[in-house]
Amino acid sequence: MRFSPLVDELIQALKCLPGVGPKSAQRMAFQLLERDRVAGRKLADVLAQSMSDVGHCQTCRTFTEEKQCPICASAKRSQQGTICVVETAADVLAIEAGGHFLGRYFVLLGHLSPLDGIGPEELGLALLEQQLASDDVKEVILATNPTVEGDATAHFIADMAKRHHVTVSRIAHGVPVGGELEYVDSTTLALSFNGRVEL
Amino acid sequence: MRFSPLVDELIQALKCLPGVGPKSAQRMAFQLLERDRVAGRKLADVLAQSMSDVGHCQTCRTFTEEKQCPICASAKRSQQGTICVVETAADVLAIEAGGHFLGRYFVLLGHLSPLDGIGPEELGLALLEQQLASDDVKEVILATNPTVEGDATAHFIADMAKRHHVTVSRIAHGVPVGGELEYVDSTTLALSFNGRVEL
Ligand SMILES: [Zn+2]
Ligand SMILES: [Zn+2]
Repeated sequence: MRFSPLVDELIQALKCLPGVGPKSAQRMAFQLLERDRVAGRKLADVLAQSMSDVGHCQTCRTFTEEKQCPICASAKRSQQGTICVVETAADVLAIEAGGHFLGRYFVLLGHLSPLDGIGPEELGLALLEQQLASDDVKEVILATNPTVEGDATAHFIADMAKRHHVTVSRIAHGVPVGGELEYVDSTTLALSFNGRVEL
Repeated sequence: MRFSPLVDELIQALKCLPGVGPKSAQRMAFQLLERDRVAGRKLADVLAQSMSDVGHCQTCRTFTEEKQCPICASAKRSQQGTICVVETAADVLAIEAGGHFLGRYFVLLGHLSPLDGIGPEELGLALLEQQLASDDVKEVILATNPTVEGDATAHFIADMAKRHHVTVSRIAHGVPVGGELEYVDSTTLALSFNGRVEL
């Protein structure tokens, strides 16, 4: 015997959130019930609305409840003629936080992974190819992750870009600025050697 | 410029959960949107229903959508004549997980804290006193936390129990079984010396 069915159900339901185990779910449920019902109701509303209304930007595939996300809808960003290809919507946020990139994005929502049945179609690459075929795009910057799958995906898109005579580049991977060499993992270190620049 | 208003709002709303900062909120929002809309909708429903329907057990004050929680509703548990007083609903779960205690609970939902305006009334102590005044209760076990406030609360309730000639005890605090002495904090160690038992 534990709590009443509804409280048990709330604790169970909270476990669908990533990184939330039984103990945290319990703590969340009790905190909302005890101290923050207004915030709990607000979360329930926004969550229900998001799950129904949020779709994908028809240009870059990121999450939006509009036809186009604010970045694609900005003429200024599109006129740059540069598309940065990333794996996830979180990557867009990370790059936007830097504020250096002024073009627009294409969000794959994954990477090529034949064993999981994720091919070019699942990543929306036909849509990307249409955009590369138009005259508006001058350069593609590949910012997929430096993993086996991310690299394979980058190569696949690079070939596609070349067929359409679009300049293609891959962001540099290496020792982070301010990072101490001895604490950098060996894969990153290998990448930083391979990507060394002659002075 | 970030995401569309609704996605931003979802990330904001998730931050009401304890232990969830901006990065985790973002990860939660994207995971639900990308992979788990069914679970997200379910969470929204259960959350909305819980925030409206879950109240307090009229006997022990724990969370329940019924008049009485399953433990108070069990004649077997009430007939034990023992009430264990705890600070939070989570404490009930922790003790129930042990399975050794067969009586019922009284959940204070806090501890005496005059500076925060939390007195006997806020902890439902009049309700507890009614129960102590009845002939059904033989013993009160105080399981409030071993803090200044928890101790003060325990003393207050102990006095109340004595006035009604109800046996009152406090759970033992000390070095946990399997715990190594050198890793136990000094307060716990002091409690374990004070509570030493003659052999
Ligand atoms: Zn877009
Ligand atoms: Zn109860």
